[in-house]
Amino acid sequence: MNVMIIGDICGQPGRRTAAHYIPLVKEKYNLDLIIANGENSAGGVGITANVLAELLDLGIDCITTGNHIWDKKEVFDFIDTEKRLLRPANYPPGAPGKGYNIISIHNCNIAVINLLGRVFMPPVDCPFRTADQILSEVKDQCEIIIIDFHAEATSEKLALGYYLDGKVSCIVGTHTHIQTADERILPEGTAFISDIGMVGSWNSILGVDKEPVIKKFITGLPTKFTVASGNETIFCGIVIKIDNSTNKISKIIRIQENFKF
Amino acid sequence: MNVMIIGDICGQPGRRTAAHYIPLVKEKYNLDLIIANGENSAGGVGITANVLAELLDLGIDCITTGNHIWDKKEVFDFIDTEKRLLRPANYPPGAPGKGYNIISIHNCNIAVINLLGRVFMPPVDCPFRTADQILSEVKDQCEIIIIDFHAEATSEKLALGYYLDGKVSCIVGTHTHIQTADERILPEGTAFISDIGMVGSWNSILGVDKEPVIKKFITGLPTKFTVASGNETIFCGIVIKIDNSTNKISKIIRIQENFKF
Amino acid sequence: MNVMIIGDICGQPGRRTAAHYIPLVKEKYNLDLIIANGENSAGGVGITANVLAELLDLGIDCITTGNHIWDKKEVFDFIDTEKRLLRPANYPPGAPGKGYNIISIHNCNIAVINLLGRVFMPPVDCPFRTADQILSEVKDQCEIIIIDFHAEATSEKLALGYYLDGKVSCIVGTHTHIQTADERILPEGTAFISDIGMVGSWNSILGVDKEPVIKKFITGLPTKFTVASGNETIFCGIVIKIDNSTNKISKIIRIQENFKF
Amino acid sequence: MNVMIIGDICGQPGRRTAAHYIPLVKEKYNLDLIIANGENSAGGVGITANVLAELLDLGIDCITTGNHIWDKKEVFDFIDTEKRLLRPANYPPGAPGKGYNIISIHNCNIAVINLLGRVFMPPVDCPFRTADQILSEVKDQCEIIIIDFHAEATSEKLALGYYLDGKVSCIVGTHTHIQTADERILPEGTAFISDIGMVGSWNSILGVDKEPVIKKFITGLPTKFTVASGNETIFCGIVIKIDNSTNKISKIIRIQENFKF
Ligand SMILES: [Fe+2]
Ligand SMILES: [Fe+2]
Ligand SMILES: [Fe+2]
Ligand SMILES: [Fe+2]
Ligand SMILES: [Fe+2]
Ligand SMILES: [Fe+2]
Ligand SMILES: [Fe+2]
Ligand SMILES: [Fe+2]
Repeated sequence: MNVMIIGDICGQPGRRTAAHYIPLVKEKYNLDLIIANGENSAGGVGITANVLAELLDLGIDCITTGNHIWDKKEVFDFIDTEKRLLRPANYPPGAPGKGYNIISIHNCNIAVINLLGRVFMPPVDCPFRTADQILSEVKDQCEIIIIDFHAEATSEKLALGYYLDGKVSCIVGTHTHIQTADERILPEGTAFISDIGMVGSWNSILGVDKEPVIKKFITGLPTKFTVASGNETIFCGIVIKIDNSTNKISKIIRIQENFKF
Repeated sequence: MNVMIIGDICGQPGRRTAAHYIPLVKEKYNLDLIIANGENSAGGVGITANVLAELLDLGIDCITTGNHIWDKKEVFDFIDTEKRLLRPANYPPGAPGKGYNIISIHNCNIAVINLLGRVFMPPVDCPFRTADQILSEVKDQCEIIIIDFHAEATSEKLALGYYLDGKVSCIVGTHTHIQTADERILPEGTAFISDIGMVGSWNSILGVDKEPVIKKFITGLPTKFTVASGNETIFCGIVIKIDNSTNKISKIIRIQENFKF
Repeated sequence: MNVMIIGDICGQPGRRTAAHYIPLVKEKYNLDLIIANGENSAGGVGITANVLAELLDLGIDCITTGNHIWDKKEVFDFIDTEKRLLRPANYPPGAPGKGYNIISIHNCNIAVINLLGRVFMPPVDCPFRTADQILSEVKDQCEIIIIDFHAEATSEKLALGYYLDGKVSCIVGTHTHIQTADERILPEGTAFISDIGMVGSWNSILGVDKEPVIKKFITGLPTKFTVASGNETIFCGIVIKIDNSTNKISKIIRIQENFKF
Repeated sequence: MNVMIIGDICGQPGRRTAAHYIPLVKEKYNLDLIIANGENSAGGVGITANVLAELLDLGIDCITTGNHIWDKKEVFDFIDTEKRLLRPANYPPGAPGKGYNIISIHNCNIAVINLLGRVFMPPVDCPFRTADQILSEVKDQCEIIIIDFHAEATSEKLALGYYLDGKVSCIVGTHTHIQTADERILPEGTAFISDIGMVGSWNSILGVDKEPVIKKFITGLPTKFTVASGNETIFCGIVIKIDNSTNKISKIIRIQENFKF
């Protein structure tokens, strides 16, 4: 089984790049399952019904998110009905939507879990204990478990990685929009990478126009962040290869492609 | 001219790895200059006179640091006299030590500048304006300018990168201890990478033992962080190649080696 | 000389309360000068031209602000021309508007300085050094110097208080919207209070409706904060009495009045 | 029934002041129960067995704490056995000690609950839901419920106040060490104050020496914080009066006394 996990898809340039590259990479790696983080897919923050449909049409099987999940208010209209869309599981009980989903492929149950970090982030429930709780629910019925841990601090990401090493198939970080070069298989067999990066405009700061970001850092004045355009983009993600008989991870491959449209 | 910049060297495992690999990599890349971040070199936080001497003996020409520079109190005894040791330049005026240094190699003046980020960090002076100030002092006398921007947030790192693109030779990030896979030459010619990573124990969380870090995240109780031992380590850094006639960056090469002692 | 300094005026309930009480308190304390913080005066965040005119019409001589100064975009249209409106002085050089103002009353020059804290706040320039800089400019031409230090942490407020004790007439804190009971005259003669509180709706959380704030804390979901209405309000501020011959502070009086309209 | 709640007792000057004033205030207000926050009682941070015994000897019936509870390592030796010592209840399950205690006085059961805020604080469990959980356990067996909410942000304190208004007898804030002037009885009958202040050295910054704090703010360099001495101190707290027949709060009285030894 080959699974791709794609980083935060940022606005129209990100969606265009995903639309272009997913068919190619799907064939190249013979992908069975595609997961993508969609928290920035609509205009740079949040997700709309149209954008959700567009992403699902690309063949993405499950969309994870993060701290920007609630930014487009219409998300509250469809998050409870679209089970392929996840929000971080460690929002307090009662939050709309759900934090994990079980997908069946080739007689194999795959749990996809979305978690949010707490370091340098607004308070939510403990991601470690939420992971424990969800694992107790899914571990007996799922052969493969994949976590998107949307978090800022490398320490928190690695801590969760080691904490769940051997208990889940794969943990990827998202949120910083910059791919890290630390993909590895941890001692007990869990594939890990601190951040898989983003899909979006290349000559940008994390997918948005450079000038307002720089101006904000220098002046302290509020500026409006806008999705960067330009005909150059980047696509970031990983592919994990899972042994069909043992369900063990055999490989984690970092994907990073630049495009010019 | 070939310059290596090495990530945060963490404790004894980091120093041992540096001692082992620097001679090899120096020959392999025909290095003219070696810079390393030493903020974690003594016992995981800070730097001592003995450790400083040990690092300089390895052939490191300039030691940058970061938020942990003051953690070993004896640093105040030698930071004003050892010009090869830098502290972030954007500490307020009057701070001991200095934030940049000019090194002459083969009739070429190279400025090494150390800056500290402010996002998710204690307040210091503006790194953008401090960079402007130092550049106005050194740009006429230096052919090459290299910046170690010790910072957490990818947005702040990229913002400084674009802000100084074309004005300096190279900007590397440090502090997260995880190497990023975004090394590139920016449009105006500046080599850039968000984080060059660390040198230290491999089966660790950022160089320190896993268990106390995990326990702290789960329990909220204070734990003592200890430099991780073990005979496996990692060495992270970059090599930049600079054209001798134009002083332009021709290449940025990401270095990441695992060792078993 | 009697000077009143009024806390953050919050939206319409705050302005209504100020309009009602300022004439009464002006007579009661025989006020010569009225300063008020207006960062929340227009709809709860920021200030508009209309609201500014309304506040000045009430007899307020100088309007200080804080982190919300830029929230209403039209402020950029008039902040450079209305010298009675201040923004924190420690925004980086080049920020629109100015951070202090000198007012002449009865042949006495009074400097009003606005500063912003950095603890638990976005990064700006050092308020301590900015204060030093402004004092070096105004101290020879002003008999009285008053500072509104808009800050969160009690430690930073007290630190500035002691740092400037004897060098300025009065330092008041604003921003938390809750009046503190620590008004005093510091050893070297400076009147000090950590926070003078707010003017606004009484059955509210810091001037805004309770329910969205509570919901946000419990659910972590975004909520829209709205200025609280209701016919009960509170007015908070201080009056300082200054000896006309020595220009020394003789008294600091905490004012807190509840109203029912 | 008359209950006194005393703010953070800071080091030896705080203990000396408490020892001097508790007998006087006990008589003056005919106190039935005395609660005090002891998180800074031993050398400014944490609590030791000796200091705990000293505080209990003063007639304090219950000691609440906060983020500094774990600072003296020996606390782990006695926190599980001394039921009069509380730590915030919203530390994750499994933390040593307990977060509430039920005290019986005159045939009346009084629950004292200790909670920790999350705004500008390290992550812990949600204080609102932890309060709900504890209330469901104690409300049927307790006539009076008192909460020490150790938190920084005024918004979070007021939000908890309104959230629990009518469900508990009294909520006091601690942690900022500065008494606020907003004591009141909320619409549904709960006595509330944002912060009751501290007991400690008067010419200090929150109980510690001024100079290192000021130096840290100005230089960004680490400094050692030391409990301030001097023969002037302050005692801060509140007294609540509870009707014996209805168990309703009839009055909240803010106490603030300065002493010269
Ligand atoms: Fe994102
Ligand atoms: Fe995010
Ligand atoms: Fe660092
Ligand atoms: Fe480091
Ligand atoms: Fe404010
Ligand atoms: Fe305000
Ligand atoms: Fe505290
Ligand atoms: Fe405290």
